[in-house]
Amino acid sequence: MGSDHPKTARTDHDVIDLIARRWSPRAFDSTKDVTRAELLRLFEAARWAPSGQNEQPWRFVVILRRESPAAFEALLGALLPKNRSWAEAAPVLALVAVDETRKYGPSAGAWYDAGQAVAFLTLQATAMGLSVRQMEGFVAAAARDACHVPASFTPAVIMAIGYAGDPDALPHESHRVAERQPRTRRPLSEFVFDTEWGKTF
Amino acid sequence: MGSDHPKTARTDHDVIDLIARRWSPRAFDSTKDVTRAELLRLFEAARWAPSGQNEQPWRFVVILRRESPAAFEALLGALLPKNRSWAEAAPVLALVAVDETRKYGPSAGAWYDAGQAVAFLTLQATAMGLSVRQMEGFVAAAARDACHVPASFTPAVIMAIGYAGDPDALPHESHRVAERQPRTRRPLSEFVFDTEWGKTF
Repeated sequence: MGSDHPKTARTDHDVIDLIARRWSPRAFDSTKDVTRAELLRLFEAARWAPSGQNEQPWRFVVILRRESPAAFEALLGALLPKNRSWAEAAPVLALVAVDETRKYGPSAGAWYDAGQAVAFLTLQATAMGLSVRQMEGFVAAAARDACHVPASFTPAVIMAIGYAGDPDALPHESHRVAERQPRTRRPLSEFVFDTEWGKTF
Repeated sequence: MGSDHPKTARTDHDVIDLIARRWSPRAFDSTKDVTRAELLRLFEAARWAPSGQNEQPWRFVVILRRESPAAFEALLGALLPKNRSWAEAAPVLALVAVDETRKYGPSAGAWYDAGQAVAFLTLQATAMGLSVRQMEGFVAAAARDACHVPASFTPAVIMAIGYAGDPDALPHESHRVAERQPRTRRPLSEFVFDTEWGKTF
């Protein structure tokens, strides 16, 4: 993907190529599997993310569609219908679960650290030509059942992992359009402040 | 920093260099400032992190020690004493605050997304030869006061940002030792499962 790709970030300040190029497709190539060796590299990247007190409060349940179609179907069924419509083409789904029983800090801090781990995983995926799309739109109880998540952990996100595919294969028109729109973000002035809230940096 | 550095991750599977080399020092070079141009690149990296519904629920209040010594002192004072002992040498402190009023999903999802943004920032820093250490050990009310954080946002983390310094300059013996210990993580078998919880991937 070159810098002329519509999803390459239009940055105001120079950032590393991996960050500029990362984006979250809905269109996955359903014919192109991800190998276990590739997946292990993704989770190895997550492994080395920072976390409070080095607690590493993240867990992943990984399902390969072709190897485990029934388990894949069960986790797919936990997704809200609009997510299900495109995610069924992904070769891999993975549930991210968070340990909210950690000893230090607020339990939300475990979510924060899980986010860091998945961010590392996502940039590793970008480096390997893989794509990741994260979904919050799912029924937590159904995901818990599908993956046998114990009570001490909380399902946070379901990831679709694979090689990006053809936007025209997406069933929803709105998704086909979104897949080609430029990515947008708040300007820095809205979220970076100098010494105190609201003061321009 | 080469692959023989004690803090380079000893990975079981190959990951990108930035992830293997990233670590969180306590020893910062107090004489080496970070420029505003450098900081803008860090926050630009955070800007392009993924977030649920593209809400970007993260905000940063940034304080340069040399430019704004009183503001720096106020935020430093919110840290627990052991963090304060080393963080006072960092040229920059930045508070990460989270928007818990987001419309979609659990409020902890905003923490998760803030974690992703800081993870991107941290790898951008690594690419630039800069270091970041995140701290949960601070008094939230004091940080809120110091940075004038409105009620609708929650202080999540304070970051120290700068160039890594000499471990021997750290005031605490335990910190001097930790600064040279290899980094450790759970094995993948403890946090990556195949189709269901507890099953080896």
